[in-house]
Amino acid sequence: MSGIRGFLDLEPLGDDRFAAPIPHYPDRPTMFGGQVAGQALRAAAMTVDPQQLPSSLHAYYVTSGALDVPLVMEVERVRDGRSFANRRVEAVQDGRVVLSLEAAFHRPEDGPVRAEPLPPLLVPPEELPAEPAPARGFPDVPVEVRTLDAESIPSTAGLTLWARSREAWPADDPVGAACLLTYLADMRTGFAAASGLAGFEPGMMTSLDHSLWFHRPVDANGWVLVQMRPLVNADARGLVLGTIHDRAGNHVASFTQEVLVRPRRDP
Amino acid sequence: MSGIRGFLDLEPLGDDRFAAPIPHYPDRPTMFGGQVAGQALRAAAMTVDPQQLPSSLHAYYVTSGALDVPLVMEVERVRDGRSFANRRVEAVQDGRVVLSLEAAFHRPEDGPVRAEPLPPLLVPPEELPAEPAPARGFPDVPVEVRTLDAESIPSTAGLTLWARSREAWPADDPVGAACLLTYLADMRTGFAAASGLAGFEPGMMTSLDHSLWFHRPVDANGWVLVQMRPLVNADARGLVLGTIHDRAGNHVASFTQEVLVRPRRDP
Repeated sequence: MSGIRGFLDLEPLGDDRFAAPIPHYPDRPTMFGGQVAGQALRAAAMTVDPQQLPSSLHAYYVTSGALDVPLVMEVERVRDGRSFANRRVEAVQDGRVVLSLEAAFHRPEDGPVRAEPLPPLLVPPEELPAEPAPARGFPDVPVEVRTLDAESIPSTAGLTLWARSREAWPADDPVGAACLLTYLADMRTGFAAASGLAGFEPGMMTSLDHSLWFHRPVDANGWVLVQMRPLVNADARGLVLGTIHDRAGNHVASFTQEVLVRPRRDP
Repeated sequence: MSGIRGFLDLEPLGDDRFAAPIPHYPDRPTMFGGQVAGQALRAAAMTVDPQQLPSSLHAYYVTSGALDVPLVMEVERVRDGRSFANRRVEAVQDGRVVLSLEAAFHRPEDGPVRAEPLPPLLVPPEELPAEPAPARGFPDVPVEVRTLDAESIPSTAGLTLWARSREAWPADDPVGAACLLTYLADMRTGFAAASGLAGFEPGMMTSLDHSLWFHRPVDANGWVLVQMRPLVNADARGLVLGTIHDRAGNHVASFTQEVLVRPRRDP
């Protein structure tokens, strides 16, 4: 098993339960949240009519996932309607809930169109330097990331980056593409939540929750632009609003994440 | 039973199950979503250490709630940690899930502070006309609403309003105040999701999901300013971002809601 496609290959155990592979990243002692959320979305989708595509998810990162304990996705079929289906998934390790996710699936419909804009100065990924692999156990192994510098970002805080999977994806797997976006949308959110706070030195940061809304299909083989803006910091929690556009400028998804952002405590 | 405080008065049935009263509004054939979400948050809180305050919730409005079928909140204790607790609640009528909600509770902590701004031209509620009761079954009975006109709103689309409960609230009930904000944050979201779309005539609109993040305590007896901005419309779904400030300008909560916004179909 290697890469994102590998860990999205779940094994049915019967009764809407699925065994999920656990990837290991250098120097990372626990599971990456975006991995577990993507696997939970995949598990939910495996119980839904494939004509209904992922439209949104809401997840809580309940506890850190261990790397050496079998991971099982337990799906509850909350509702099957004509337009929408609802699922709930608990990601469980040895009876302990690691992640709790709900997702909605929707039969595509026509309607009005509105989108968030792209940044005014958008440097294409080919003109940006390849980012060196971050040091501290980041989940970048299966993903290329190229960060735009602050001059390209319209607001005074936040983070904007191009991201692309290193793998080849099939064209007819909209669920896989949504799982990939879920993974990408959990990267660097802590930096975004702590950015622009003058004089603040972050200590512990960890993802608390995660919501994504999938607006239209996306090519999992292409670059996507991830823009993150910190909205609020209070009570040691920071709320980030994100948008994801494809290379052609289509707004394909939006997301929020709340991050625990504790001040650094000197020893 | 009358007003919001009345329907937040749940009856424990044992085993973390709670019976929830159902208010009736003139001309409204189904339950109001913000009512059920508020009740689910209250039920979750009744199983949590009161030192841990509501920090966020994520809910799916699964089906319309009936007015004449007993409503039961079924709470699952997902995790009790030192800083955070997680709960899941299903609102059930006769075996059918009406709403599925997850919530987090957090022991207050110090940390950095950032907030979204107030509108530049903020007319106080006393200088705005009392809004006539809306016609079509709106849940305004227990709430005063005063809408700011478009000139007060910085963006080209969206909705900004003052809202206040008509009831007297105790000062020492932070959970009740969070439930009240949940109710208020489900009002007029459809208008916000459909606003600013030139030439578009909305038909059916219904709330799909709802997320709130509670940043700091709020006085349930005071006016709050609710600002809603539509971010995206696609696939007949519209995503709204909202902020809630108190009268003193403190950013007390943020929310998102996805609304099904179908075009009007001529008969």
